[in-house]
Amino acid sequence: MKKIGILGSTGSIGTSALDVIRHARDKYEVVALSGYSNIDLLMEQIEEFNPKYVAIGFKEGYDRIKEKYPQINLFLGEEGLKEIGKLKEVEILLTAVSGAIGIEATVEGIKSGKRIALANKETMVAAGPYINDLLKKYPKAEIIPVDSEHSAIFQSLLGGKKNEVSKLIITASGGTFRGKNLEDLKDVTVEQALKHPNWSMGRKITIDSSTLVNKGLEIIEAHELFGVDYENIEVLVHPQSIVHSMVEFKDKSVIAQLGVPDMKIPIQYAFTYPERDENTVFETLDLRKVGTLTFEEPNREVFKGIDLAFKAGKIGKTMPAVLNAANEIAVELFLRGEIKFLEIYEIIEKAMDRHEPKEIDSIETIKMVDLETRAWVYKNYEK
Amino acid sequence: MKKIGILGSTGSIGTSALDVIRHARDKYEVVALSGYSNIDLLMEQIEEFNPKYVAIGFKEGYDRIKEKYPQINLFLGEEGLKEIGKLKEVEILLTAVSGAIGIEATVEGIKSGKRIALANKETMVAAGPYINDLLKKYPKAEIIPVDSEHSAIFQSLLGGKKNEVSKLIITASGGTFRGKNLEDLKDVTVEQALKHPNWSMGRKITIDSSTLVNKGLEIIEAHELFGVDYENIEVLVHPQSIVHSMVEFKDKSVIAQLGVPDMKIPIQYAFTYPERDENTVFETLDLRKVGTLTFEEPNREVFKGIDLAFKAGKIGKTMPAVLNAANEIAVELFLRGEIKFLEIYEIIEKAMDRHEPKEIDSIETIKMVDLETRAWVYKNYEK
Repeated sequence: MKKIGILGSTGSIGTSALDVIRHARDKYEVVALSGYSNIDLLMEQIEEFNPKYVAIGFKEGYDRIKEKYPQINLFLGEEGLKEIGKLKEVEILLTAVSGAIGIEATVEGIKSGKRIALANKETMVAAGPYINDLLKKYPKAEIIPVDSEHSAIFQSLLGGKKNEVSKLIITASGGTFRGKNLEDLKDVTVEQALKHPNWSMGRKITIDSSTLVNKGLEIIEAHELFGVDYENIEVLVHPQSIVHSMVEFKDKSVIAQLGVPDMKIPIQYAFTYPERDENTVFETLDLRKVGTLTFEEPNREVFKGIDLAFKAGKIGKTMPAVLNAANEIAVELFLRGEIKFLEIYEIIEKAMDRHEPKEIDSIETIKMVDLETRAWVYKNYEK
Repeated sequence: MKKIGILGSTGSIGTSALDVIRHARDKYEVVALSGYSNIDLLMEQIEEFNPKYVAIGFKEGYDRIKEKYPQINLFLGEEGLKEIGKLKEVEILLTAVSGAIGIEATVEGIKSGKRIALANKETMVAAGPYINDLLKKYPKAEIIPVDSEHSAIFQSLLGGKKNEVSKLIITASGGTFRGKNLEDLKDVTVEQALKHPNWSMGRKITIDSSTLVNKGLEIIEAHELFGVDYENIEVLVHPQSIVHSMVEFKDKSVIAQLGVPDMKIPIQYAFTYPERDENTVFETLDLRKVGTLTFEEPNREVFKGIDLAFKAGKIGKTMPAVLNAANEIAVELFLRGEIKFLEIYEIIEKAMDRHEPKEIDSIETIKMVDLETRAWVYKNYEK
């Protein structure tokens, strides 16, 4: 029995993870869950999986759960995520909360020697160098990526040695607005931006996918996770989302991981690695049905998410944290209808321009930069 | 320095192998070469690579080489291939001769503990169970496949464990006549059949590719090399020949190997495995340029090569040897203009129908069946 803790169990990744576990109940024990504001779903999950520990975002939900399940060890707020990160009984910690609040819990998870099934992009984007140092200090801990792209790269890397890698090729669906130009994007609505062609995901990440900022964050994450120079990371638009990413080795052999677009596959892999478990509920990829896979260069002049990330990544230090924080608030403001789509790029760019990058000597530094950037965006763009 | 022996150095694979070596002369020593009838090319190769041992198919060539290079240890005929197979000084034996004559030299190579860079399909098709037994007896020996499809599977298998494989997906260009029906194929000419869309190969293998018998032989070879049941081997037509084959694991994750269609990549991999060497002369796969990859079900009713192979493979014993021998002669007769294209299938089918499969207790058994089948085809179809 693998003992699982899930941070963000009511989100898209969290519910997929519980679906993986639901179909292999003899293999997993759900020790801990955490939800933010979706109390009803969290209570259903508690009913079904009977976790010993639960963290919840708001006091109201805390009280409801406390009353109904007095036997549960209940935590509140961000501190609650950290407490779950520390739990000795958890072997695998799935970090599926979105945003910078996932970082500290991940740090606790590493310090307590866990496998981190990493679905929180911000951890490696904002705190990559810090996390990598930490992993050296706590060699029992390990990170297995859950993002479909990074899981694909992780799996493809098994085809060779680290020093034999010549290029990581991250595929991108191209998002809702693939093929559009700057003029087309001037007045797009939230509804338009929320229609993702292949993946069913949360609102924030769907917008990130349409700006390609998501792909930008993945570039930085890949750099930090796999130690590959930015010069050797490439983005390839692949609208069908079947080839999840690729690795080119220096003998020009390319290894790729493919599958139907279903997060359950990389989630389960992060749970079972280095093994692979059968899972009959997963859909089989049938390329005869898919028929055609296409690949094209991303339009980096329109979708500036990629170049902004390359820029932030190459500057390094706290700059990626600024990119991430500015983007989070910009997307929030876009979703609230307070800014236009293209202003997302503008906000990120200005936030980066005004920032003086600092060495990441502690999580505090990242938190400070994160908060300061958020405050600046709110102050200048909130209506 | 890796010490290389090449059986069939003047053929398509052999010359590609020497091209690999030509661009990495500090890594390889060419110990032995063998050619059949192309004496001029063989002499050029001797000039350039200075091998200590050479085997040659015909007495005339033997005399010419003996006179010009008296210092070389020279062998004649099929026995010569076996002698090279035995050489202690050869570490890696590339078996790039086509046809059943490669089997015995491979056996000698295994008995003397070599790495076999296997480019002779017939070895595993006709003698698979025998070779697999031999590999158990001589654990120092190993087979690394050179065929682009089997190299792709070999590389993709690194992504998981053997008992986690659910399916091998062998890709096929579909050959020159993809999309044609039986009526279209009735009167096709040798010239038409020799036009292969992607790979530049020898005449025999180009015809085999157009009948899909080649793919059939690869199915049997994959079964023998990787120990996967025929039920779990699938052929997928992929006209661009970029995805060289795939492995589906039981968690529905698919690993694929891609690259430009260039045999130098799998040849070098068979030389360097488990390492990968940089080779700057190899062309980089640029999927932005390729643009589109398509996949479709093969038409097994028209291109009977696949089903004939499944049938022969499932019967096992000496039946695949019959398929192979009948096909070799049928293709020869087609190339000579003595039979029609579709008669290739008819000949294979009849040869299989009349054959009583025997256990493969020795190479002699295979040779007998091989010769007997060839004789029967000549007798009944040669004009």
